[in-house]
Amino acid sequence: MSEMVKVAVDAMGGDHAPGEIVKGAVEAANENARVKVFLVGAENRIQEELKKYSYKPEQVEIVNAAEVIETAEPPVMAIRKKKNSSIVKALQLVKNGECDAFVSAGSTGATLVGGQVIVGRLKGVERPPLAPLIPTEKGAALLIDCGANVDARPSHLVQFAKMGSVYMESVMNVKNPKVAIVNIGAEEEKGNALVKETFPLLKSCPDINFIGSIEARDIPAGHADVIVCEAFVGNVILKLYEGVGGTLIKMVKSGMMTSLRSKIGALLVKPALKETLKAFDLEQYGGAPLLGLKGLVVKTHGSSKAIEIKNSVLQCVTFKEQKINDKIKEKITLRDE
Amino acid sequence: MSEMVKVAVDAMGGDHAPGEIVKGAVEAANENARVKVFLVGAENRIQEELKKYSYKPEQVEIVNAAEVIETAEPPVMAIRKKKNSSIVKALQLVKNGECDAFVSAGSTGATLVGGQVIVGRLKGVERPPLAPLIPTEKGAALLIDCGANVDARPSHLVQFAKMGSVYMESVMNVKNPKVAIVNIGAEEEKGNALVKETFPLLKSCPDINFIGSIEARDIPAGHADVIVCEAFVGNVILKLYEGVGGTLIKMVKSGMMTSLRSKIGALLVKPALKETLKAFDLEQYGGAPLLGLKGLVVKTHGSSKAIEIKNSVLQCVTFKEQKINDKIKEKITLRDE
Repeated sequence: MSEMVKVAVDAMGGDHAPGEIVKGAVEAANENARVKVFLVGAENRIQEELKKYSYKPEQVEIVNAAEVIETAEPPVMAIRKKKNSSIVKALQLVKNGECDAFVSAGSTGATLVGGQVIVGRLKGVERPPLAPLIPTEKGAALLIDCGANVDARPSHLVQFAKMGSVYMESVMNVKNPKVAIVNIGAEEEKGNALVKETFPLLKSCPDINFIGSIEARDIPAGHADVIVCEAFVGNVILKLYEGVGGTLIKMVKSGMMTSLRSKIGALLVKPALKETLKAFDLEQYGGAPLLGLKGLVVKTHGSSKAIEIKNSVLQCVTFKEQKINDKIKEKITLRDE
Repeated sequence: MSEMVKVAVDAMGGDHAPGEIVKGAVEAANENARVKVFLVGAENRIQEELKKYSYKPEQVEIVNAAEVIETAEPPVMAIRKKKNSSIVKALQLVKNGECDAFVSAGSTGATLVGGQVIVGRLKGVERPPLAPLIPTEKGAALLIDCGANVDARPSHLVQFAKMGSVYMESVMNVKNPKVAIVNIGAEEEKGNALVKETFPLLKSCPDINFIGSIEARDIPAGHADVIVCEAFVGNVILKLYEGVGGTLIKMVKSGMMTSLRSKIGALLVKPALKETLKAFDLEQYGGAPLLGLKGLVVKTHGSSKAIEIKNSVLQCVTFKEQKINDKIKEKITLRDE
């Protein structure tokens, strides 16, 4: 039997904590016998929630943490001051090797900063990118970086391309993933200073499948598997995906309610439409990994329910069993010539 | 009677040139007696098209231009070499004061570069931004800059905010337009170096209604009227609007075709849905103005049909009659204290 995968879960983070968090963590343990979850947070509240479920006691452990980092707190300060917070204590478990991974629906800033400061970067990794999966017509693509590391340098983007390729290949089973850099035109001479400097570096990388520039218009069509950009642009892409998607779906719904005729039609199309739009739901993929750390940190949506927490925990199993960090280390330290 | 508004139109630019371009220009002249269009391009081909329509001869003039700048040509070189191209000849008309404005569905690069090089900037304007209108739940918002000027400086963004405010107030009749800067969080301390430097400058501008940062997620919801960003980010926003919108609408359509039940429903919802989605169509607003020039340059979609050309020409009338350039000059040279 293979080794257990130990996942620390921030029981206090997110809009539906601790209820949905505890529920999702228990569900993950019940679904996969190789998972052990460490629920980090207010002991009595977690116990209260755990009473509702049945599970194997050896698969669920509580780690008491008296403090909570709020999403509005400045992250660097919060990590430094709140040593007893669920985020800091959970990250310590990963740092000490007691856990393999950490899943949080809490403060994004604190999770990202804490991941770097407490868990630490893999040797050779300059910046750990946050890399969510986004839906496209052809399945999921990895958007890398959407993190807190704005004003990136070309060498960072090259590492993002490599780490993203490892992830798509090993976790998502995409053979020879197509890597593209976000640009404002398809031609090599287009772009801002960062993209112009990065383009030839990516082109000369022997161990990635670089296909060139991608215009934002072509991202939803699924032209690339690994979409490389610096964090500011990545964040705009991720948030606009949500924004345009949300607004359009709202308009489609209200458009169908404008007449009796369309209301009847709406009843008929609803099930089919729901099924189709599920394929374009950003939240279906669970959390976004922060890649390049000594361990794994997964950030899920603040609004995560049990299903997202469960999927994020199970994602950690694949991540460990596929030895993603070994593969990243190997790819990062490989000399490009 | 007020003076005629003279608009040079690139008869050779765009996917449907010269047919749809000539048609749209004639329609604009027929709709507004104060418009005179100058159709710039291959004389014989324009004449051929003009035969199809009736119009007042004093409102339509042909200016022969033997060359065409293709969209794939490097713009700076094309502007320099092709002196007899429709774009260069039309821009000369604006420079010489023979025309007030220029409308093109042709090469974006050549139109932007030519606008700056041939027509020239208004005194005090550092960079002329390309500013398309984008649809939101609450109507149109101005996205400024989406042009070729990447790697902008804070002072450029402040000017974009001012020029955008003038445009929304005078052309779109939005009283005291709300100005926001695209950012990756709502707090003042968030952002990349450019945004962090620009934020306090915008905050201290006495003559704009600055409401702070806007996350990309909130753009489609219509939280701001003037959305300030540098051109790379603006281009990503504009293109992703198209991309996500296009993909979702395609998926809604195919989702409705999956069963007999939903096909019947689709027939019933179609008219209402079409009407609703029209409100979210990027192309409804016609062309995007390149602001801050001595004259007006309007860039319309390469796929423009007659209706977009007509709307773009008519937009030039409002622009001139509202004395937008005088207002921009006044606002730009106003000292902020």
